[in-house]
Amino acid sequence: MPEAAVLDAPRGGDLPDSPFLKQLIQLIRAEDSFGNWEGKSDAELLADFVVTKEERREIPIIGDPDPDILWRVEQFYGAVGLMVEKATGCMATPMMKMHHEGFGRIVLIAGRLVVVSKHLRDIHRFGFVSYAKLAEAGDKLVADAVGVIETYPGAARD
Amino acid sequence: MPEAAVLDAPRGGDLPDSPFLKQLIQLIRAEDSFGNWEGKSDAELLADFVVTKEERREIPIIGDPDPDILWRVEQFYGAVGLMVEKATGCMATPMMKMHHEGFGRIVLIAGRLVVVSKHLRDIHRFGFVSYAKLAEAGDKLVADAVGVIETYPGAARD
Repeated sequence: MPEAAVLDAPRGGDLPDSPFLKQLIQLIRAEDSFGNWEGKSDAELLADFVVTKEERREIPIIGDPDPDILWRVEQFYGAVGLMVEKATGCMATPMMKMHHEGFGRIVLIAGRLVVVSKHLRDIHRFGFVSYAKLAEAGDKLVADAVGVIETYPGAARD
Repeated sequence: MPEAAVLDAPRGGDLPDSPFLKQLIQLIRAEDSFGNWEGKSDAELLADFVVTKEERREIPIIGDPDPDILWRVEQFYGAVGLMVEKATGCMATPMMKMHHEGFGRIVLIAGRLVVVSKHLRDIHRFGFVSYAKLAEAGDKLVADAVGVIETYPGAARD
């Protein structure tokens, strides 16, 4: 692709038709108790999940991360958990523990099984270069978690 | 036992000869970088893990719990994790997530397996009526966790 085409593309690219993104959008809209986001398109709702390379460089990683970032991390992994449940019938609950300075760990637990385990760092920069990459990252986590449940079905259903 | 004997007993009763309590004491002494606690007996070191019924009633459960309490909860579950490792060879790492107002969850994770999972509430009142009850609670958690690992050895060693 010539560079001009990249420059002309909308920030984050086009919103792909992805079941994971639909789940994430649904989760976010479910929190809109006051209808503030009713006028927003799906792409607008997910806009803060996009962090371009240029933006990434400008985000300082000093100090505790913004609560909005932690909220987005929770929504992202929450959507992963719901997709895992749809695929396997096992409810997968996120548990996030942030230490100071944007460093921490998140796990998704189904029954007695840890189906996702991620050490987080530089959480200040949590985001994806495009909507497509956001969808891809979610799909990969879901697929891996489903694989773990298939390997240890007893522990997942305990 | 006549009531007079109870009243005369030292607070928390006698320190039983318990491998779990030894582990907990060792863990606490390991954090004493400046030697402040060198002159303290084992019973003195564990004194704050004892909360008598009378004391319990007087502890308000309003507001966020004191960091010292969270530290003791972490030490207690850390000792459980180390005893589980001694018994099974599987390292069991605590992950604690406290919400506000003393409500939260703690898990111990070995490999992909959740070997201990506890929902915490009224954490302000975390403690045991006696050293014997503290030892008993630790022993029970260790035994349960070892049982979970024996049930799902593959996930624990993943």
